[in-house]
Amino acid sequence: MPEKKYLFTPGPTPVPPQVLAALAEPVLHHRGADFRVIYERCLARLQAVYRTGADVLLFTASGTAAMESAGANLCDGARAVVVSAGAFGERWEKIAALHGAELEAMRYEWGETPRADDLASRLAELGGADVVFLTQSETSTGVVADVQALAAAAKEHGALVVVDAISSLGAVPLEMDAWGLDAVASGSQKALMTPPGLAMCAVSEQALGAGRPSRSFYLDWERTRAAQAKLDAPFTPATSLIVALDVALGMLLDEGLEAAFERHVRLGRACRAGVKAMGLELFSPDEDRSAVVTAIRAPEGVDSSDVVAGVRRHFGMTIANGQGHLKGRIFRLGHIGWFDIFDITTALAAVELVLAELGADVERGAAVTAALEGFEHQATAP
Amino acid sequence: MPEKKYLFTPGPTPVPPQVLAALAEPVLHHRGADFRVIYERCLARLQAVYRTGADVLLFTASGTAAMESAGANLCDGARAVVVSAGAFGERWEKIAALHGAELEAMRYEWGETPRADDLASRLAELGGADVVFLTQSETSTGVVADVQALAAAAKEHGALVVVDAISSLGAVPLEMDAWGLDAVASGSQKALMTPPGLAMCAVSEQALGAGRPSRSFYLDWERTRAAQAKLDAPFTPATSLIVALDVALGMLLDEGLEAAFERHVRLGRACRAGVKAMGLELFSPDEDRSAVVTAIRAPEGVDSSDVVAGVRRHFGMTIANGQGHLKGRIFRLGHIGWFDIFDITTALAAVELVLAELGADVERGAAVTAALEGFEHQATAP
Repeated sequence: MPEKKYLFTPGPTPVPPQVLAALAEPVLHHRGADFRVIYERCLARLQAVYRTGADVLLFTASGTAAMESAGANLCDGARAVVVSAGAFGERWEKIAALHGAELEAMRYEWGETPRADDLASRLAELGGADVVFLTQSETSTGVVADVQALAAAAKEHGALVVVDAISSLGAVPLEMDAWGLDAVASGSQKALMTPPGLAMCAVSEQALGAGRPSRSFYLDWERTRAAQAKLDAPFTPATSLIVALDVALGMLLDEGLEAAFERHVRLGRACRAGVKAMGLELFSPDEDRSAVVTAIRAPEGVDSSDVVAGVRRHFGMTIANGQGHLKGRIFRLGHIGWFDIFDITTALAAVELVLAELGADVERGAAVTAALEGFEHQATAP
Repeated sequence: MPEKKYLFTPGPTPVPPQVLAALAEPVLHHRGADFRVIYERCLARLQAVYRTGADVLLFTASGTAAMESAGANLCDGARAVVVSAGAFGERWEKIAALHGAELEAMRYEWGETPRADDLASRLAELGGADVVFLTQSETSTGVVADVQALAAAAKEHGALVVVDAISSLGAVPLEMDAWGLDAVASGSQKALMTPPGLAMCAVSEQALGAGRPSRSFYLDWERTRAAQAKLDAPFTPATSLIVALDVALGMLLDEGLEAAFERHVRLGRACRAGVKAMGLELFSPDEDRSAVVTAIRAPEGVDSSDVVAGVRRHFGMTIANGQGHLKGRIFRLGHIGWFDIFDITTALAAVELVLAELGADVERGAAVTAALEGFEHQATAP
């Protein structure tokens, strides 16, 4: 039998067959009436997922370009504070610096959880800032920050709040309007259950009105906003991916955002329960908020690269290594988007088999049962 | 019967069913061994299509981003000459100016064909330039410039040569290495027969070594080159589109580039023959080089917007209006990529029917026959 394949990384994530089927439809022209119906619905569905009335600007690009759009449109000469605790937070620093911000880097150790009171103190010391950059789900460590609290601290000091929600949008709660967020970047290939290639940045009126000239042609917010207002795009968009994203967003909204958030909480619980039952140590926090990716320390004497290579070689399964200095030390299981409990048990079972083969001292036969038990109970009271 | 649909614009272009089918395959991880085999082959096939040994940098983006990558990596403080004769040439001006070039705009009227001796004189007057920006196929007018001659003039004055080959690569001859081109931008959605979403910029050693710091994070040449050298990508690429592009490039190279160029020449001849037989006036040049898109003046008393709307309403057919000040005055038929003679006769027949309905004085029943005759003879002696 040809090898079955399993994609358990924190992005790209598995894509439902209905979405894949939509990709195979004949290409539509981006200015045709048939496409515009889909485009309009897709943009409205994005607003629903972001819980915003603001424009969701759509770019044909990876998520990083949506992040860069915020830097290129907000940073020129601005006083910017970047809160970082991992690879993606540090990406904000590079983007803000490149685009001319006067940069204040507020760094935590990788794996720490940023605290709103730290941000409030720093902003008080600085006498405020023009923009604060945050990461909701730090994919490199599995930490999900309390963006609502961090944003409140930033707003109190008069800053615009920019959030990287690439791996979190649709997986954990995010309330663009209720939390007063000004720019929120995301991407198609995570909880939005679509292949990589589309990036979006929802942008508040206040951020659009901040009036700094764009330092990017392709990522110019105003050019994109003006085009979308006429249901057009400034440059030929990835129409096939937009058609697919529309199908995926329909599925997500049919499930209901609250149900999807609940499912992710339970998947995270299940994954952590299984990991602990195996006798492994979590790197990501052992808490419900950590519902996007579970980061696990490689056991004593085992290089996590061998775990990643082992599940691929034996089972056609892709999981993620650590990034940066954590490469070889942790491995990561994503559970974002089109995932159910059996994806978790499958991933855990494969990890268990490979760790045993590598001679690690793991508890055998416990992880799958513990994961099922961890999943069983509703996350929130009915 | 549900309406059949016809896509006859100069981009996006029709995509072969084999390529669409590849899009519907399960998503691969960009760092997995299974993807890397495809990625490596796709990058090698791109080099074959560009006829270059240089790196072809691949961006998840529209073609404009590949253009911007050249501006962002070459323009900071550079003396740049932009040769323009239409909407896309003027786009080079905007990009070069935004990224800090000292800009010399060498503008022709829309529809004119840039001349190498004009460029040589201008460069002589200026005492040379650091970079010259050219457009091979000016999609807004149907003009295909003699890039080989223009590039020679630019090289003679010591300039790097940057070419927009978005609608031309794979349709008309382009010899990156033999012509000494330094950066050539293209996109997936034209002659490369893939949906929009991938952009590429082939970059010579000399251009990479020009040593100006990138003004874009996402479009940084050096970051992209370094990642591709390890068969990696700096940001999650549109893996599904890359798998599809690989299939399409395989088809193009199986046909053979020379055969594809010959086919485009004959399609262009057929289209022009049909247009003239109908009694319409060409806007694009009546010459073999004009093999990418045929631009046609709307007949006296007819708004070209009504032609575009008419073929869509009656026949589910998408053709292109004029851009900018040519909107309403010309319409454009693309014949790029996955096109054969019956696409041309179908387009002409529909245009004839709609023009007749609009009361235009067109010769009836002549276009299809003339197109078939125009196509019949080989473009070059065997």
